[in-house]
Amino acid sequence: MNQEIIKSISQKTDSKIIFVVIDGLGGLTNPETGKSELETAEIPNLSRLAKDSLCGLSIPIALGITPGSGPSHLALFGYDPIKYKIGRGILEALGLDVEVQENDLVARANFATYDYKNSRVLDRRAGRIPTEKCVELCALLQKKIKKVDTTKILFHPGKGHRFAVIFRGKNLSEGISENDPQKDGHPAHLIEPLQPSAKKTAEMVNNFLSLITDTLKDLNPANYVLLRGFAGYPDLPKITEIYQLNPAAIATYPMYRGIARLLGMKILPTGEKLEDEIKTLEQNFREYNFFYLHIKETDLYGEDGNFAGKVKKLEEIDSFIPRIETLKPDVLVITGDHSTPAVLKGHSWHPVPFLLHSKHSSKDGLNKFTEKECRSGSLGLFQAEEIMPLALAYAGKLTKFGA
Amino acid sequence: MNQEIIKSISQKTDSKIIFVVIDGLGGLTNPETGKSELETAEIPNLSRLAKDSLCGLSIPIALGITPGSGPSHLALFGYDPIKYKIGRGILEALGLDVEVQENDLVARANFATYDYKNSRVLDRRAGRIPTEKCVELCALLQKKIKKVDTTKILFHPGKGHRFAVIFRGKNLSEGISENDPQKDGHPAHLIEPLQPSAKKTAEMVNNFLSLITDTLKDLNPANYVLLRGFAGYPDLPKITEIYQLNPAAIATYPMYRGIARLLGMKILPTGEKLEDEIKTLEQNFREYNFFYLHIKETDLYGEDGNFAGKVKKLEEIDSFIPRIETLKPDVLVITGDHSTPAVLKGHSWHPVPFLLHSKHSSKDGLNKFTEKECRSGSLGLFQAEEIMPLALAYAGKLTKFGA
Repeated sequence: MNQEIIKSISQKTDSKIIFVVIDGLGGLTNPETGKSELETAEIPNLSRLAKDSLCGLSIPIALGITPGSGPSHLALFGYDPIKYKIGRGILEALGLDVEVQENDLVARANFATYDYKNSRVLDRRAGRIPTEKCVELCALLQKKIKKVDTTKILFHPGKGHRFAVIFRGKNLSEGISENDPQKDGHPAHLIEPLQPSAKKTAEMVNNFLSLITDTLKDLNPANYVLLRGFAGYPDLPKITEIYQLNPAAIATYPMYRGIARLLGMKILPTGEKLEDEIKTLEQNFREYNFFYLHIKETDLYGEDGNFAGKVKKLEEIDSFIPRIETLKPDVLVITGDHSTPAVLKGHSWHPVPFLLHSKHSSKDGLNKFTEKECRSGSLGLFQAEEIMPLALAYAGKLTKFGA
Repeated sequence: MNQEIIKSISQKTDSKIIFVVIDGLGGLTNPETGKSELETAEIPNLSRLAKDSLCGLSIPIALGITPGSGPSHLALFGYDPIKYKIGRGILEALGLDVEVQENDLVARANFATYDYKNSRVLDRRAGRIPTEKCVELCALLQKKIKKVDTTKILFHPGKGHRFAVIFRGKNLSEGISENDPQKDGHPAHLIEPLQPSAKKTAEMVNNFLSLITDTLKDLNPANYVLLRGFAGYPDLPKITEIYQLNPAAIATYPMYRGIARLLGMKILPTGEKLEDEIKTLEQNFREYNFFYLHIKETDLYGEDGNFAGKVKKLEEIDSFIPRIETLKPDVLVITGDHSTPAVLKGHSWHPVPFLLHSKHSSKDGLNKFTEKECRSGSLGLFQAEEIMPLALAYAGKLTKFGA
């Protein structure tokens, strides 16, 4: 559904929506048992809810398309994931809990070992220096390089050899090439403008790299910096404006807090455990009317191929469902951003179990909250982009379209 | 799904896809028995496969839209059938096994009887001359007319009074009117440009028709030529480029080989029987990673209203399924391009049974491979344009979309 239309019929109400995103929720059959993660798990609360809820299987982007976290979250919140994009550099910075601003250009960066004599990259990862070394080098660079011309420079250390660079200036363009040759043994590239309007940005980044060389060249093995994934601040309409919501996000992982911030949500400080997230939800329940609650570990276990770990995490999540229900939200949505089947050890294109519980939602009578059962829910297969309008409608937050 | 996006995430792999298209597969209930063609046929192998496969009913274009072979095949291979078109003249030429080139303008042609004195068409089909006469006259015309100005002319005889003319030149436009008045008793029209850029093409074709008159005018009843369906070479992106495939086509009918060639597939020589096609598949299985196998007769029986003939053909197809399975493709798709119910004696808009078998595809547990059973498969009703992304995803040929 066109977001402009949703915007035109959205209205402020006090009704409350809790939107639980279980990352990588969907799974696939374990060949040994013939059951998926959800089919294996003991999830009496989720299954009781599913019996009394509107259910379906949501398609994150399109049949056959495996989404990254950016597009899949955009779709969940009602944004066209083809039209709107969150660039790689931006996601990287969000993952480091860096607040990105509107005039920022962000790049993913590696410390690397460079053979200046023969002009070639010896090691794109500088011998995988430890994180402490990365922190130390970023501090050094930050001390020596604060600005390039009028552009402010910010260094944010990540894990090992990885960090992020923020160029904070005016009229910076993401339309520039990368200096990273992607392979050892090749010379670093000059940064080139990919469009005429990016000429000044390319010059500025080349000047920045000269300053990097001046600072690092004698500090083997981390004597150079490779940049890639240049991305500008994504111009996304805010959830507060489109849906007239007063939204808050609870997430243990920085990247999801970052995406929520880009969409205009208030980020609630929380701890590292699911129990912490639930407490944060309870403590803040009166203050907001939309809560995005993100649970990460199911995806991590899926990525690791840890079927049993994912099952156990699902059971833990299930045990917290009654505490969420006690809050009596007007609408409770429980779904995932995409599937991460343990048997595939990665994100996949398979549609995702979905339930929406509300006073007037149908009671689909599912036997259990699983992929197969959700397929036979009222919604059947449907697009994730339609979840947000449904949640708003059941919360009484959408008026009539047309007279 | 946007084909540009599929292109951006397609990757080369060795995994193999067999894509079986049973022309006019879908049927309708025979009022005498209450069963469709598939429900009547003994198809144990297809039904066993369907039980263990991801199933659905595919909508070729849209609900209610009966497609021709061009649009329905474009959709099957992931092309938007509204955006991309294969013109009538081109399809006619492909049906005559003529290789069409990029600078060609193609027209369908009829030998006709013309009353030159009173300027009117007496018989648009020249008394339905026999095919041998058509071959003879095309040879005569080819001898007399090799070029018009700088445009090369090629005549290709068809059945009865029908043939195709290829105008091979530069900057030819399909934006011209037809000389065929579509009714006996009317004068032939002058060819007119329908847009300014088509002026020279219209002049050239009018000159061509003067040469036709010079050659044929005394050869009653085939003393004139009517042209219609002017079509230029369709500018279709190639399957090799979009999907990074190494594709081959096996088809007994020229038109389907022609469509496959337009899409960039290698055409494998084969015989006239289904057994020949299966042998061709077996012999070439190591050389390619995508096989389009087209089976025509189901559509012909449907068009003839021959319910029993279509049933028998389905049973024959079923008997070859084990030989296809023996090849162990990573993905096996079995579907049709559209429905051709014998009770309607023609193509129809009804959605088409679909199955996809792969290591990680769901096992939808169908009782039989039929229209009704496929409706209750995991995919339910879905767009044919999504088949290709699904086949590629299950074959591991698509990477993640977005970070």
